[in-house]
Amino acid sequence: MSGSPLLEQLIDALRILPGVGPKSAQRMAYHLLARERAGGERLGAMLTKAMRDIGNCKQCRDFSESELCAICAGAARDSTLLCVVESPADRLAIETATGYRGLYFVLHGRLSPLDGIGPQDLGLDLLQTRLHENAPSELIIATNPTIEGEATAHYLAAMAREQGITPTRLAHGVPLGGELEYIDRGTLFHAFGTRAAIQE
Amino acid sequence: MSGSPLLEQLIDALRILPGVGPKSAQRMAYHLLARERAGGERLGAMLTKAMRDIGNCKQCRDFSESELCAICAGAARDSTLLCVVESPADRLAIETATGYRGLYFVLHGRLSPLDGIGPQDLGLDLLQTRLHENAPSELIIATNPTIEGEATAHYLAAMAREQGITPTRLAHGVPLGGELEYIDRGTLFHAFGTRAAIQE
Ligand SMILES: [Zn+2]
Ligand SMILES: [Zn+2]
Repeated sequence: MSGSPLLEQLIDALRILPGVGPKSAQRMAYHLLARERAGGERLGAMLTKAMRDIGNCKQCRDFSESELCAICAGAARDSTLLCVVESPADRLAIETATGYRGLYFVLHGRLSPLDGIGPQDLGLDLLQTRLHENAPSELIIATNPTIEGEATAHYLAAMAREQGITPTRLAHGVPLGGELEYIDRGTLFHAFGTRAAIQE
Repeated sequence: MSGSPLLEQLIDALRILPGVGPKSAQRMAYHLLARERAGGERLGAMLTKAMRDIGNCKQCRDFSESELCAICAGAARDSTLLCVVESPADRLAIETATGYRGLYFVLHGRLSPLDGIGPQDLGLDLLQTRLHENAPSELIIATNPTIEGEATAHYLAAMAREQGITPTRLAHGVPLGGELEYIDRGTLFHAFGTRAAIQE
């Protein structure tokens, strides 16, 4: 035991963070107390504020402390493109990597009947209304290439077609820098089958 | 960018934690928001409280939110033994591993003239008073076996002898489970030189 019950409570509380075990929680607490009191206080205040104030954007369902997130509220986005992702992290990855300037819709999950996760839980009623009232020309379905992600994509594609909207899916293939030898067979099979002519 | 400025501030604040880069800070923030709001709020409150309320025990200098830490305040400790360590983490390691039931003194550092760290910065005036007024019979010097740790040990040993107190140092040698082949030469030299008769 340490000589400070409050320190033990802090170490215990730090373990809520993913990937933080007892040893690193201890190291974090000692580090903050010895060298980063101001940063630790700032983090405490931020956590308290963020956990209380961050809800979901009423348009795209991404995390947001205001009714509309900064992307939905931004004037410069192309509202004819709507990209559906499973998580806020996926949205951030696309935003960072691709230069995409359309809008998003965040499911916060994927269809999973076995876990009791249905269309309602993913906000698909909200998406339905949006496709109807404020239809994009293309629905980019960027769910993950897992069994559940593919089933979700299938469901979303049907929703889009019903409204006359073109559903699209991210291309599969050999990752840049990937070595054929180490790529899973399914990806290689798909990449081989969808091979394209080399541009001159 | 994410759609939430507050979320970005939280991710930024999380990076004060040792070993947490931009990617894991992001993963932590999303994890708390999606699945651990209550734990995140608790952590926020704990951080705020700990950073503000945890000071140092006025007797041993270990972290403590009260004047005396739980160990110094405890009745069951043997006050004839005093163990000096560089850090609270070292104290915790000894407390956890050894069954030691004496008291401690925490330096929060080591003598380092090049960094301008002198006896005053390590609370050695407080230790001096304690050795004088409330003398233990043995001063266990558990500073690290580094150059600065050894110099600090040398200094502390002189302080102890001046008051007629026996200074001791943790034994060096081959770690349990260590293989001779991989042990540094200095340790092996020392272990060989201080070899002991095998008990029957
Ligand atoms: Zn939004
Ligand atoms: Zn104490």
